Amino acid sequence: MTPKKTLAAFLDELASSSPAPGGGSVAALAGALGAALTAMVCSLTIGKKKYAAVEQEMTRILAQAGELRARFTTLIDTDTAAFNKVMEAFGLPKDTDPQKALRAAAVREATKEATLVPLQVMKHCIDALALTRQVAVAGNLNSISDAGVAAWMLHAAVESAGLNVRINLNGLSDQEFVGWKSEELESLRKSSRMMVEEIQSIVAEKLRKE
Amino acid sequence: MTPKKTLAAFLDELASSSPAPGGGSVAALAGALGAALTAMVCSLTIGKKKYAAVEQEMTRILAQAGELRARFTTLIDTDTAAFNKVMEAFGLPKDTDPQKALRAAAVREATKEATLVPLQVMKHCIDALALTRQVAVAGNLNSISDAGVAAWMLHAAVESAGLNVRINLNGLSDQEFVGWKSEELESLRKSSRMMVEEIQSIVAEKLRKE
Repeated sequence: MTPKKTLAAFLDELASSSPAPGGGSVAALAGALGAALTAMVCSLTIGKKKYAAVEQEMTRILAQAGELRARFTTLIDTDTAAFNKVMEAFGLPKDTDPQKALRAAAVREATKEATLVPLQVMKHCIDALALTRQVAVAGNLNSISDAGVAAWMLHAAVESAGLNVRINLNGLSDQEFVGWKSEELESLRKSSRMMVEEIQSIVAEKLRKE
Repeated sequence: MTPKKTLAAFLDELASSSPAPGGGSVAALAGALGAALTAMVCSLTIGKKKYAAVEQEMTRILAQAGELRARFTTLIDTDTAAFNKVMEAFGLPKDTDPQKALRAAAVREATKEATLVPLQVMKHCIDALALTRQVAVAGNLNSISDAGVAAWMLHAAVESAGLNVRINLNGLSDQEFVGWKSEELESLRKSSRMMVEEIQSIVAEKLRKE
């Protein structure tokens, strides 16, 4: 399990000639980093007299960011597993016609699954960005740059997961699935861009006043 | 040392109420992830017949990306140390005038140092983006989405480190230092935006053809 690995070992594995973990797992990790930083701003706000009015809100966000972080952390390995399943399907025998048909079906199913994992990462990022927005607005001003970093990580996670959705959709011929998922992909990317832009302008405004 | 920590432990520390590691360390880690993914594309290109013509180029980039990754990995802890030094300086006694003057000087020096660390992260990101561009152009087509993810991570690292430069510059009154470093900050951000845009259009073009 990746979360039990050291950072150095994970980076080594990433840089190696093994194709997984790759960009899909990094997208999920970036999501986890964004959720953890959002939680940090809550942790640095809770218990401070000056922020007593938002204590309840911050406690709620802290719990939600923690849940999202756990999901992202799981998705690091889910993505690697989904990728390996596609590779396994490609490795099935293709000597006879029935074998070919079985192999094609296995590749198709595994590729669909490998599309759904990064889409899930994207959806969680949108939820996380909503929390990041709240901590940027109401959290400890001293941590405003951390809220900004959280938003950049989540945006990079959305775009990165999006590239993994796209490359998997390219391998599918089911035009209905491809059409629906492409639409979902673009709508999630658009939401992320709008949210990050808004959060960064809140952060920039507070950094100016600081 | 952070690289020896597990991912789970690092994420826990990040989310905690300890202000460091924080966004500055995450920026350096995002740089390391971008450099590692760039190296991965090289690793998946080297030794493949189809890419024999770029083997030398990929071997060179692999080594350079490895060096940059090592620097980013070191900077994760350098940033935490620089932040802690600022906090220490703020903790110095301020009962007498000489104490106040010493404290102010210590805060000033530590804050300047804490500005230079994320600036260094930004510069390394620009170098890394130049390598990522090369692997997007000439590396294994099957890894094109990984090159795209590398670019998003490096861009998020630039913007994240930039927020840390900005918040530290806000604490300084040396207008010459603030002026020069602000200019450098904006020029590095602009370079990153242009490079990432170019890399993403190379990636999108190849994903369309794929």
